[in-house]
Amino acid sequence: MFTSFSKPRVLVTTFPFAEKNRSPLNMLEEAGVELTTNPYGRKLKENELKEIIEDYDVIIAGTEPITASVIERAKNLQFISRVGIGLDSVNLHAVKKRGIQISYTPDAPAPAVAEMTLGFMLTLLRRVNISNLEIHSGCWTRYFGKRLAECTVGIIGVGRIGQKVIKHLRGFNPKKVLVNDLHRQNLDDEEFPIVWSDKETIYNEAEVITLHLPLTRLTKNMIVREHLLSMKPDAVIINTSRGGIINETDLYDVLKQGHLFGAAIDVFEIEPYEGRLIELDNCLLTSHMGSMASDCRARMELEATAEAIRFIKNQPLQSGVPVGEYQV
Amino acid sequence: MFTSFSKPRVLVTTFPFAEKNRSPLNMLEEAGVELTTNPYGRKLKENELKEIIEDYDVIIAGTEPITASVIERAKNLQFISRVGIGLDSVNLHAVKKRGIQISYTPDAPAPAVAEMTLGFMLTLLRRVNISNLEIHSGCWTRYFGKRLAECTVGIIGVGRIGQKVIKHLRGFNPKKVLVNDLHRQNLDDEEFPIVWSDKETIYNEAEVITLHLPLTRLTKNMIVREHLLSMKPDAVIINTSRGGIINETDLYDVLKQGHLFGAAIDVFEIEPYEGRLIELDNCLLTSHMGSMASDCRARMELEATAEAIRFIKNQPLQSGVPVGEYQV
Repeated sequence: MFTSFSKPRVLVTTFPFAEKNRSPLNMLEEAGVELTTNPYGRKLKENELKEIIEDYDVIIAGTEPITASVIERAKNLQFISRVGIGLDSVNLHAVKKRGIQISYTPDAPAPAVAEMTLGFMLTLLRRVNISNLEIHSGCWTRYFGKRLAECTVGIIGVGRIGQKVIKHLRGFNPKKVLVNDLHRQNLDDEEFPIVWSDKETIYNEAEVITLHLPLTRLTKNMIVREHLLSMKPDAVIINTSRGGIINETDLYDVLKQGHLFGAAIDVFEIEPYEGRLIELDNCLLTSHMGSMASDCRARMELEATAEAIRFIKNQPLQSGVPVGEYQV
Repeated sequence: MFTSFSKPRVLVTTFPFAEKNRSPLNMLEEAGVELTTNPYGRKLKENELKEIIEDYDVIIAGTEPITASVIERAKNLQFISRVGIGLDSVNLHAVKKRGIQISYTPDAPAPAVAEMTLGFMLTLLRRVNISNLEIHSGCWTRYFGKRLAECTVGIIGVGRIGQKVIKHLRGFNPKKVLVNDLHRQNLDDEEFPIVWSDKETIYNEAEVITLHLPLTRLTKNMIVREHLLSMKPDAVIINTSRGGIINETDLYDVLKQGHLFGAAIDVFEIEPYEGRLIELDNCLLTSHMGSMASDCRARMELEATAEAIRFIKNQPLQSGVPVGEYQV
C-alpha cells in the first residue's frame, strides 16, 4: 500500500521513454506525481542510479542494475514498475526483504522481439550483414547463403517469444523445428514437424539456433566454447534475450577461428556494448532493440505507467511479478 | 540446330559457377565440350566479353552485357543459356536477327529472392542495418522501428517472386497487401486483404514497397524523385529485381534529405556498384545476391547447363525464352 505525506515522487530510469507517444507523461502528470526522467539519456550504471534514487517512492525501470546496494540507498522506494519482462537486472531477494512491490510487462515486448529474430535469421543465412558492411567500405563479394527451407531451426525457450518465432516460420517451411524448454507444452504445427529435443541435440543438428530465455543462475554462461564448437560449422546463432547466456569471449574466439556461419547479438553483459565482437564482420550487432517496435514499446510504457499509477492510488495491481520469479 | 565440325566450344561467363556443386562442370566434361570459364572472377564488362567471345559456339551466361556489338563479334555463337531469369542484359533483337537461340531458368531463383526480400523488410523496419554499422564503428543508439503487423505492404510485380513474398508474409499479418502487375490474377489470401492498386496508390499508402519486375523499356527509371517523394516519409523501399528501375541518383538525393525510413538495394545499374549510396547508413546494400542461396543457385546452374547440353546434342530445348519476351 502506497504511503506518503507529500506528492508521490516517481523516477523514470528507462530510456527512451514517451519519445514516440507522450501518453505516459500525461498520465503521470494527471496523477499529480513529481516526476524525474533519466538524466543521462542512456542505460544507467549502478553508481549513477545510487546517486539519484534516494528520495523516490516509485521507479519506472529499464534494465539498469537494481542491486542490493541500490535498494539499500533507495530508502523511500515502495514500488518498481519494470518496462519489459526480464528481471535479471533486479535483486529480487533484496526487493522482497524490504517489502518493495514489483510489477512488469511480460506480454508487450514479445511480438517485436520475435519479428526481429526472424529478420536476424534471414540476414545471417544470406550474409546480408557482411555484404552491407563491405559495400559501405567499397568492396563487392557475392556470398552464397542458405534458405530457411533448407534448415533445421532450433529454438531454446518456447514461451511468449519462442512461440511467436514458430508462427513467423510458417511461411518459410523449415525442414524441422527443434524446441527445448523447462516446461513441455503442445506446439504442433501443420506446416512443419516440431520436435522436443535436449539442448545438445539442438547444438548438434540445427543450422539456425535462437535463444528466448530469461537470464538466471541456470542460463548464465549456458553456452560456452564447447557448446559453440559442437554446433555445425555453418550454423548461425541468435541471442535476442539477455546478454551473458552465451559467453561473449568464447563466442568471439569461436567466430574468429572460422567456426559458425555467423551470429546475431542484440543483448550484452554490459550495455552499451564496447567489446571485441565489434571486430567481426560475421557478427551482426544491434543495441538491445528487440522490444523497440513503436507499438510494443508504447504498450510496455503505457502498461508500466498505468501499473505505477495503480500503486500510487492504492488500486489493485494487474501485473505483479509472480512468486515463481523470486525462486529462479 | 547445333552445327560444328569440331568439339563444341562453351564459354561460361557467369560468376561464380559450380563453386558449391561441381556437377555442372562434370556434365560439360562428359558432354565432351571444350570449356572456358570466366577469367576475371567477376561480372564481365562489354569490352572484356567482346575480347573473349569470338570463337565460342555456346555461352552459359550471367548478367554481363550481351549487346549488339558483342553479338557481332561472336561469329560462331549459336546458343545462349542464361543462368537466371532477367533478359535485360541481352539484346534480344540482335540475337534473333542472327538466329541465335536462347534459354533461361525462370523458376529457379524465385525462392531465394523472395526470402531475401522478407529479410530486407524486417531489417529496414527495425533499422538493424544502421545499428549494426554503428556498433561496428563504436556507437550505440537504440532505434525505434515498426513491425510488419503495423504496415501496409506494396508489391509491384506479383509473378513468380512477388507471389512467394506474399506467402512469406503470412506469418506476420501485415495490415494490408497492395499489389500491382500488368496482368491481374487471383491472389486471395485468408490471412490478410490483398488489394489490386495502381502504382501511385502503392507509393502513397504503403509503409513497405518492394519491386519484383523485369528491367524493360517500361520499367527503366520507373521510380524517380517525384515518386520517391510521394511515398510516406517513414516508408521503406526494396529493390531485389534489377538496377535502373529506381533511379539511383534520385534515391540518393531523397534518402540524403531525410525522406524515407530506409532502402535496401541488391541490384544496380553498374555492378560491381561503386556509387554514392554507399555513403548512406540507411541504405542497405548487397552485391546482387538475391539468387545466391545454395539450392537455388545450384538449380539455376544445373538447369542452364543441361539446356546447353541439350542444344549441343540437338535435343529439344526445355526452357527456351518465350516469344513474348522479345516484344517488351
